[in-house]
Amino acid sequence: MCQGDERYILAFFLSSSSSIRLNSKQKYKLLMQLEEVIKKIEPSEKEIEKARAVAKKIIEKLNKENYEAVLVGSVARGTALKPIKDIDIFVFFPSNMPKEMLDKKIKDLGKKVFKKTETHYAEHPYVKGKVKGFYVELVPCYKIKPGQKIKSAVDRTPLHNEYLMERLKEKHKREVLLLKQFLKNINCYGADQKTHGFSGYLCELLILHYGSFEELLKNAARWERKTVIDIEGHGKNTRSFIEPLIVIDPVDPERNVASAVDRTSLSKFIWACRSYLENPSEEQFFGKHEKIDLKKKAQGRKLISISMPYPDVVPEIAWSQLEKMAKMLKEQLRDNEFEVYRSFYWTDEKKESVILMELLSDELSSVVKHKGPEIWDEKNTKAFIEKNPDFWFYRSRVYAWRKRRFVKAEEFIRQLLKEGIVVPSHYQKLAKKAKIRTGKDVLKHKEMMELYFRKG
Amino acid sequence: MCQGDERYILAFFLSSSSSIRLNSKQKYKLLMQLEEVIKKIEPSEKEIEKARAVAKKIIEKLNKENYEAVLVGSVARGTALKPIKDIDIFVFFPSNMPKEMLDKKIKDLGKKVFKKTETHYAEHPYVKGKVKGFYVELVPCYKIKPGQKIKSAVDRTPLHNEYLMERLKEKHKREVLLLKQFLKNINCYGADQKTHGFSGYLCELLILHYGSFEELLKNAARWERKTVIDIEGHGKNTRSFIEPLIVIDPVDPERNVASAVDRTSLSKFIWACRSYLENPSEEQFFGKHEKIDLKKKAQGRKLISISMPYPDVVPEIAWSQLEKMAKMLKEQLRDNEFEVYRSFYWTDEKKESVILMELLSDELSSVVKHKGPEIWDEKNTKAFIEKNPDFWFYRSRVYAWRKRRFVKAEEFIRQLLKEGIVVPSHYQKLAKKAKIRTGKDVLKHKEMMELYFRKG
Repeated sequence: MCQGDERYILAFFLSSSSSIRLNSKQKYKLLMQLEEVIKKIEPSEKEIEKARAVAKKIIEKLNKENYEAVLVGSVARGTALKPIKDIDIFVFFPSNMPKEMLDKKIKDLGKKVFKKTETHYAEHPYVKGKVKGFYVELVPCYKIKPGQKIKSAVDRTPLHNEYLMERLKEKHKREVLLLKQFLKNINCYGADQKTHGFSGYLCELLILHYGSFEELLKNAARWERKTVIDIEGHGKNTRSFIEPLIVIDPVDPERNVASAVDRTSLSKFIWACRSYLENPSEEQFFGKHEKIDLKKKAQGRKLISISMPYPDVVPEIAWSQLEKMAKMLKEQLRDNEFEVYRSFYWTDEKKESVILMELLSDELSSVVKHKGPEIWDEKNTKAFIEKNPDFWFYRSRVYAWRKRRFVKAEEFIRQLLKEGIVVPSHYQKLAKKAKIRTGKDVLKHKEMMELYFRKG
Repeated sequence: MCQGDERYILAFFLSSSSSIRLNSKQKYKLLMQLEEVIKKIEPSEKEIEKARAVAKKIIEKLNKENYEAVLVGSVARGTALKPIKDIDIFVFFPSNMPKEMLDKKIKDLGKKVFKKTETHYAEHPYVKGKVKGFYVELVPCYKIKPGQKIKSAVDRTPLHNEYLMERLKEKHKREVLLLKQFLKNINCYGADQKTHGFSGYLCELLILHYGSFEELLKNAARWERKTVIDIEGHGKNTRSFIEPLIVIDPVDPERNVASAVDRTSLSKFIWACRSYLENPSEEQFFGKHEKIDLKKKAQGRKLISISMPYPDVVPEIAWSQLEKMAKMLKEQLRDNEFEVYRSFYWTDEKKESVILMELLSDELSSVVKHKGPEIWDEKNTKAFIEKNPDFWFYRSRVYAWRKRRFVKAEEFIRQLLKEGIVVPSHYQKLAKKAKIRTGKDVLKHKEMMELYFRKG
């Protein structure tokens, strides 16, 4: 840390309008704490140089092939956490080139640039290769200008990059790193299907908007039901956005940069902000999660896990389908009087996919109570009683007993999986081989159960 | 049956505007059916004479003691079902005599009239004695005129008697008997705490109003949410009545004669009316209840019975307290996530009192899920998390696990009884000796379980 930096941070804390009132000794301690955090997460100059050199070389190769290309993402902007893993390079194609041709061209370029390539599919394919320890992604896109209509979802990325490159100052970068690490610690860093959290671009915009990590925290701690952050003052009517946090994209007012942030992630972040402001500690960056006695914790709880092999799809699709499956399963259980306390889903993205249901009760009466019409409704009362001979009246209404098909939640789930009712496409075949566990057996999924039982 | 009667009933059925269209053969069959019913329920002339002679003798004795007295009730009006059991005699006291003196006087009179007396307590005491096989009740009251303010709840009875004696024709009496038997068969005859049904007086008013049993049935089948029957056209505003059936007392427009009829009894009656009109059968007067295989019926159901000795009180109080206790127990169970499908209570009025709870599930998770505030409520979120360290966020809300005190409904009920929380006065001591049964053991209460499992 150079002296200038130190002075900047100290000055910030002294001038801060924070509700936390600290004496100068405490302030110094806090400052040192954040410095300790930064030391642990900031890549070295050497590491950054190395990544940028790799990128430069690849871009030169692409230029030789007559393609314009640009380094984007956190490496370009100096906001990558240590260790640097990914290098993102966007390759521009003429806007009159059809999408299908992009697919072929980018694969060809991949072969020229990398020794060994992998093709991945998002909205359209991109190629990935490993160079000097970095995963380098070549993403094809069309060049557009701010405000211009995009042809592909990724076309905005180079504009995001330009926007931030012009505005992100050196002082901001360290704050971005702090924010990213803070979010990582509460599993809220990433706009992916697993996380439903904050993207890197969103982190940078938030720091840009609020000026610093601490200033963001102080504001986020008081975010309201529908917070709108409109950095460029586009003044867009936000009624069409349904997400809980709205950050208008500076380069496209129609887009909410925070659209991936779901209510759960937002709540976790707001709670973390408040906790940190009240009692700032390094643990909120590198939380040592308390050791959980799984066996004791699960004692007497009505847990059911459904485990299936991991399907042959990218994690984005697997997570999204697991989420959908958990939701449908929960609805089916609830519709059949199995009260679901909480549901969960998890995958190691390699071998296993697991859905967890925690119930109020996993065994119900052998009969179902059906609620009929009120006695005043002559026609329907008659029809109900004809259909349900085991009826009785309570107050103005007729009720009836019917036999319950599945008394145990486990049996009911087994049947649902057999019928494929709650199973999304990529799990249809796998669900037939699903293993259903109850009671202490669910603890076999150690990693998931530790996550599930974690507070917050 | 004399020829005149037969002709009357036949004429009635022929002229009837009933929706049931019968040919003359069917009509004759139906007529014969009702005649069969009447034969079984109508006391003989001799029996009636005998009861009236007993009453006359007692009234003469009372007159000798300088008390005016009057035979009231079904014996007076010829509307008693066979066999005649009760003879009700009201003894008038001067309206300036204090209530406390009534108590003493009526007991003295009892001793003079009966060999052996029992004193019972309603609003004020009355004496009961057995004479020639009849239970004779001497009830003290003040003489009032129609519309005059009553001093005691029973003061209206002589007015009811006068009103009906003047209006009930011979033809009505048989119809009253049919109605009473019809109600008896569905356990809806009686305004007592056990039945919450139709009093004898109400039966007579309904027949008077509609003209016949069948005409009542046809109307009752279409009674609406708040039916008002105002025989004397008092035109009283009925908004102050909260009961589902309102029959304005001809002698006191402030009173609803049907106030004891609860929603359940009313529904059962309306359903019985509709069933009878659709398919009239003698079974609806003397239903042979189908034999129930209790063991099979109870299989897999979550039944819990609480049995206590019968307390030293009159049945009215026991039934009323059992009802209250069942209601409180149900509320407590529901508040603690034990979903109560149906509750029931029963006593033989001699040795045993039983409360029955049928649950969706009798064993719950070892944890309780508590719902906290939304994240936007900073103060309460903080307080909730401080109180509930095992918390998590789901969408905008915080939830937490707490240990459940009682996992089994049986244990929870045992604790409630121990603490006396759900126990009305006369069962306070008895509840300590309560026996709690679950599963097939509840079938020990055979009589109650047969009633409980009965349809309708």
